[in-house]
Amino acid sequence: MPTRPAGEASPRQAESGLVVIHLNVHMGDKSTVDPFCEIGVPPRGVRDGELETHIGERSTIRSHTVLYAGNVIGDDFQTGHGVLIRESNIIGNNVSVGSHTVIEHHIQIGNRVRIHSQAFIPEFSQLDDGCWIGPNVVFANALHPLCPKAKQCLKGPVVRRGAKIGANATLLPGVEIGEMALVGAGAVVTKDVPAGTVVVGNPARIVKRVDELTCPYGLLDGPYGTGHTASQGKEGNS
Amino acid sequence: MPTRPAGEASPRQAESGLVVIHLNVHMGDKSTVDPFCEIGVPPRGVRDGELETHIGERSTIRSHTVLYAGNVIGDDFQTGHGVLIRESNIIGNNVSVGSHTVIEHHIQIGNRVRIHSQAFIPEFSQLDDGCWIGPNVVFANALHPLCPKAKQCLKGPVVRRGAKIGANATLLPGVEIGEMALVGAGAVVTKDVPAGTVVVGNPARIVKRVDELTCPYGLLDGPYGTGHTASQGKEGNS
Amino acid sequence: MPTRPAGEASPRQAESGLVVIHLNVHMGDKSTVDPFCEIGVPPRGVRDGELETHIGERSTIRSHTVLYAGNVIGDDFQTGHGVLIRESNIIGNNVSVGSHTVIEHHIQIGNRVRIHSQAFIPEFSQLDDGCWIGPNVVFANALHPLCPKAKQCLKGPVVRRGAKIGANATLLPGVEIGEMALVGAGAVVTKDVPAGTVVVGNPARIVKRVDELTCPYGLLDGPYGTGHTASQGKEGNS
Repeated sequence: MPTRPAGEASPRQAESGLVVIHLNVHMGDKSTVDPFCEIGVPPRGVRDGELETHIGERSTIRSHTVLYAGNVIGDDFQTGHGVLIRESNIIGNNVSVGSHTVIEHHIQIGNRVRIHSQAFIPEFSQLDDGCWIGPNVVFANALHPLCPKAKQCLKGPVVRRGAKIGANATLLPGVEIGEMALVGAGAVVTKDVPAGTVVVGNPARIVKRVDELTCPYGLLDGPYGTGHTASQGKEGNS
Repeated sequence: MPTRPAGEASPRQAESGLVVIHLNVHMGDKSTVDPFCEIGVPPRGVRDGELETHIGERSTIRSHTVLYAGNVIGDDFQTGHGVLIRESNIIGNNVSVGSHTVIEHHIQIGNRVRIHSQAFIPEFSQLDDGCWIGPNVVFANALHPLCPKAKQCLKGPVVRRGAKIGANATLLPGVEIGEMALVGAGAVVTKDVPAGTVVVGNPARIVKRVDELTCPYGLLDGPYGTGHTASQGKEGNS
Repeated sequence: MPTRPAGEASPRQAESGLVVIHLNVHMGDKSTVDPFCEIGVPPRGVRDGELETHIGERSTIRSHTVLYAGNVIGDDFQTGHGVLIRESNIIGNNVSVGSHTVIEHHIQIGNRVRIHSQAFIPEFSQLDDGCWIGPNVVFANALHPLCPKAKQCLKGPVVRRGAKIGANATLLPGVEIGEMALVGAGAVVTKDVPAGTVVVGNPARIVKRVDELTCPYGLLDGPYGTGHTASQGKEGNS
């Protein structure tokens, strides 16, 4: 029979009958899992339940989400629909991961990080506190794909505190986006972006400083001015 | 138990046992829902069934699609697989939404609109009659993400009648794509595109008029010439 | 009732109760299907079971994958989660298709091809042996979308043996990527890429030859040098 052998893996269906929860999954109080999710999936070569999976309190796992075993995730975690999160990631408090986003393995994600829909975050990436990843943003981590040594030099991008990555931007392997920097939508970032700068284009180039941005609607002095600082802590561009 | 509390929400499983249909969902004759779909999902803070959901006749909802409550959708609607459509959208007749595409909320979509696979359409976007959105096209609506006033200025792109947006193009917040305009694949559109023009590049620039396009295969005079006009109504570039 | 009529189509649920396998699906020994998959979906206008579906030995179909009828797929096939593969494709041995990737219909995929996550491969594309398609790569096949003759000139890209397409790159209809060529991340490829060259940018331009690439970590002479040749067969750039 072509289905996964049930005897060995023994995932259990939750009482809705439409959710698969594997062994050794620990979820905090007031956390919920929607239909068609599979939680605690063992990675290849690992037995069901061999790795612990921790999800904090008040978390919402929306439908069709797949979460592997071996993740340690803080409180107030939210996924959109159809999210995939592979194994062995460390994710802080108050993080949201948008619909259809793929998070690979061995990634560090800080607190208050917002990852929008359809993004791709490969292994060995790092997302520091309060950063924002727009829809369809793609990180790369393999400099020379299929190189026989490719596995030895995988290096994900590092996004520093409070940086924002615009929609459909592409980040090359190992680039560092400095604190509070802003990467424009559609940019292709091929080298490090200094803290507090704005980059756009392919390849991305610095066009201004974040503190030079103004609000075209006159709603506030600058979008990342003192009001923002208050809620984000120390800024890289102040 | 981590699954959604069943008592309050009381979604019902359709007879296949693999579909969740929430309360107050109204589907027209000859409409079908494939396995692993969830239809009429209440948005956060709304009770199950509090918002009506309407889908017209002869509609096909393919597997793994999630459709929120509060949508009003016309006849002959089709989704691909794994589509997500959030709440409170108004969608015309004869619209198709491709596999894995994400449609956020409060969006207006006209008649005969075709949205291809893996696209991202955020809240407050507008897609007029007969426009075409290619695969992996990404619309943005937040000019300055995480700005403390960001919610007050969200503004989606507007795509006018018969315009076409090429594969993997990126549209910045609030840009207007004029009638019958053509945005080239991979373009990053940072400002309005006049009706009947062709734009390409990052940032996108006008390279010609749509009526200057020719068919390299000699199949017809121009791809958007008189033959096309007949089936699309009045054109912006004539 | 809005669900797919069960009597006519008569898909069967595998014993997990959470998988739909249609008629006339043939899977080799040691192949498995995870929960929430639908395998052997008949395309529009085709009866359930009318088309044979073949998947080879030791294949792994991960959760939420949808595979249409009429595919002929070799051994050691792997999908990520939420993959969609439409009908009538021919896929070789030892191929992997990453999570959330969409493969349309009538596509030829050789042996040892690796397609990463969230890619889009439209009908009439061709992927030769040993090529690598990065995350979120988008192929186009319609030169002039909605042209009344558009269906007559659909032409997918052709990726020759051992070529690599970087993350979030866009390939225009019908372009040919030569053997062992490397397309940089975020590139927009508007014309053929000669074998053994490296292209980057929008539009993509040749910046060097693959055999000029060096390893910044000193792990080997060149990433695509003699060590690689041994496992890939004859190279286009030698």
